[in-house]
Amino acid sequence: MNEFQLIRRYFDRPAPGAVLGVGDDAAILAPAPGMELVVTTDMLVEGRHFFAGTDPASLGHKTLAVNLSDVAAMGARARWATLAVALPAADEAWLAAFSRGFFSLADRHDVDLVGGDTTRGPLTLSVTLIGEVPAGQAIRRDGAVAGDDIWVSGELGGAALAVAARYGRAPDVGLDTLRNAARRLDWPEPRLQLGERLRGLASAALDVSDGLTGDLAHLCERSGVAAELWLSALPCAEALLALRSSAPALFAAGGDDYELCFTAPRAHRAAIEALPAELGLRLTRVGRVAAGEGVRLLDAPDGAPVLLTHTSYDHFR
Amino acid sequence: MNEFQLIRRYFDRPAPGAVLGVGDDAAILAPAPGMELVVTTDMLVEGRHFFAGTDPASLGHKTLAVNLSDVAAMGARARWATLAVALPAADEAWLAAFSRGFFSLADRHDVDLVGGDTTRGPLTLSVTLIGEVPAGQAIRRDGAVAGDDIWVSGELGGAALAVAARYGRAPDVGLDTLRNAARRLDWPEPRLQLGERLRGLASAALDVSDGLTGDLAHLCERSGVAAELWLSALPCAEALLALRSSAPALFAAGGDDYELCFTAPRAHRAAIEALPAELGLRLTRVGRVAAGEGVRLLDAPDGAPVLLTHTSYDHFR
Repeated sequence: MNEFQLIRRYFDRPAPGAVLGVGDDAAILAPAPGMELVVTTDMLVEGRHFFAGTDPASLGHKTLAVNLSDVAAMGARARWATLAVALPAADEAWLAAFSRGFFSLADRHDVDLVGGDTTRGPLTLSVTLIGEVPAGQAIRRDGAVAGDDIWVSGELGGAALAVAARYGRAPDVGLDTLRNAARRLDWPEPRLQLGERLRGLASAALDVSDGLTGDLAHLCERSGVAAELWLSALPCAEALLALRSSAPALFAAGGDDYELCFTAPRAHRAAIEALPAELGLRLTRVGRVAAGEGVRLLDAPDGAPVLLTHTSYDHFR
Repeated sequence: MNEFQLIRRYFDRPAPGAVLGVGDDAAILAPAPGMELVVTTDMLVEGRHFFAGTDPASLGHKTLAVNLSDVAAMGARARWATLAVALPAADEAWLAAFSRGFFSLADRHDVDLVGGDTTRGPLTLSVTLIGEVPAGQAIRRDGAVAGDDIWVSGELGGAALAVAARYGRAPDVGLDTLRNAARRLDWPEPRLQLGERLRGLASAALDVSDGLTGDLAHLCERSGVAAELWLSALPCAEALLALRSSAPALFAAGGDDYELCFTAPRAHRAAIEALPAELGLRLTRVGRVAAGEGVRLLDAPDGAPVLLTHTSYDHFR
């Protein structure tokens, strides 16, 4: 199988939302009038973002999911993706599973794969995602204001626990709990529906990819504010509640959860509290925005500081 | 230096053509009304697309150039780029030179770097380029018609000669000639101005990246036509004229030239012949489109067939 047969078999699908999809020098897209575009790129490298031997279906899912998560954090609707893949060999079983995982998630969110590149090399996966949002309504990182509430979607800590388990460093939490945690690591669920509903409600947002405190520090820096987080409020699976106080970094600084963290004025509290019933997704108030700079983790509102060994993941440390 | 300092120092530049550039979950772009977008992604891997130890400034240039070349082949204007980089280490001298090469080319074509990703891993460079073209006017691969002329910009064979030289397999052509050939390989010049001028003139176009006969075969397949190419017409540097008949594959199947190959009705011949003076770029009529399928290489119009050892580069053969 050569490069072009490979693309045709595994990556050339109809792209009903594009003027022209895979197969030319470039795809052709017609953005809707009155919309702005959001564009994001994330690259996953074997041995760094995922372990060698990871289920290719989950890799296909995750490669797309981490980019969809960025689009969700902007409050945008995902539309088009390109995919660049370096592969050690043209392994058909691997490609079939990878593309199944990729397109299954793409189809759920009406995302068209419109182009890309396939080459030989150390396993590396890079997706660029383009989304649409009504002009002026994207949720940026720079809109948080002192006094705003801080919210987190879903649950934290599962993905970090799964990573610890794969390094043989997980506390004894039982097999079922580890299995659920592994699901959070391998099959993250981008919060696109939530992102769109937060337009007009959230003052700022980002997705939790490197760890809550570290990611939130970026939002604070862009907004020129400080944040206070409450460890005892951080949402996690029932089975992990005891771990939250004994291993706080898993929850406050564990990466790979791909939940949304957002700030919103107190005036929107009731509207936000109504969303979980509508979306079937937990939303938890986990802190508040203050004047100043930096992120402080307390055990509870007005409680004692909690010290972490690290605050987020850094690829060059 | 951590990942965020690295991005700030080397990749966070003003993006005057974007609503929001580097630094949020995604960039925000406002396409002009009445325009369609073209989107393309190309990934370069060390040891496959370039040799280990390649000058990082030329890599920065080439990583962007190969994508700009695809935008040129669509007849579009380049606007925005994202860049995903996997690096073995945060080498500041390497990054400084790479970003200098990248931004120097980007500035010449008013392209804004609006986002990306930086991670540790085997050296891999992936760019996604977004361009704009008036709706309905992109030059696709599927518009060639029997009777059309086939044209090539610039000169062919230099890049393939430089690759042969680096493997110690180049014929003896002299140092100056090899130096010029190396320049074609390391600093390809995307033909954006030509691409825009070809709107309304060319019936189909693509860029020559894997080799003329192989690339043209894709165009023929999409258009449902055949093509006849004339070896003696293929444009090359004066110093390589003798080589054209002794090593035809360098010119007819050598990749990495990043010239444009396009088809156009005979009625546009005079208009196209006027372009070289305007653009300062050689344009050569190298063959004709015929009914049928496949690409035939002849030594001259109505001449004898020329056999090649290969027709293009394939990453999985």
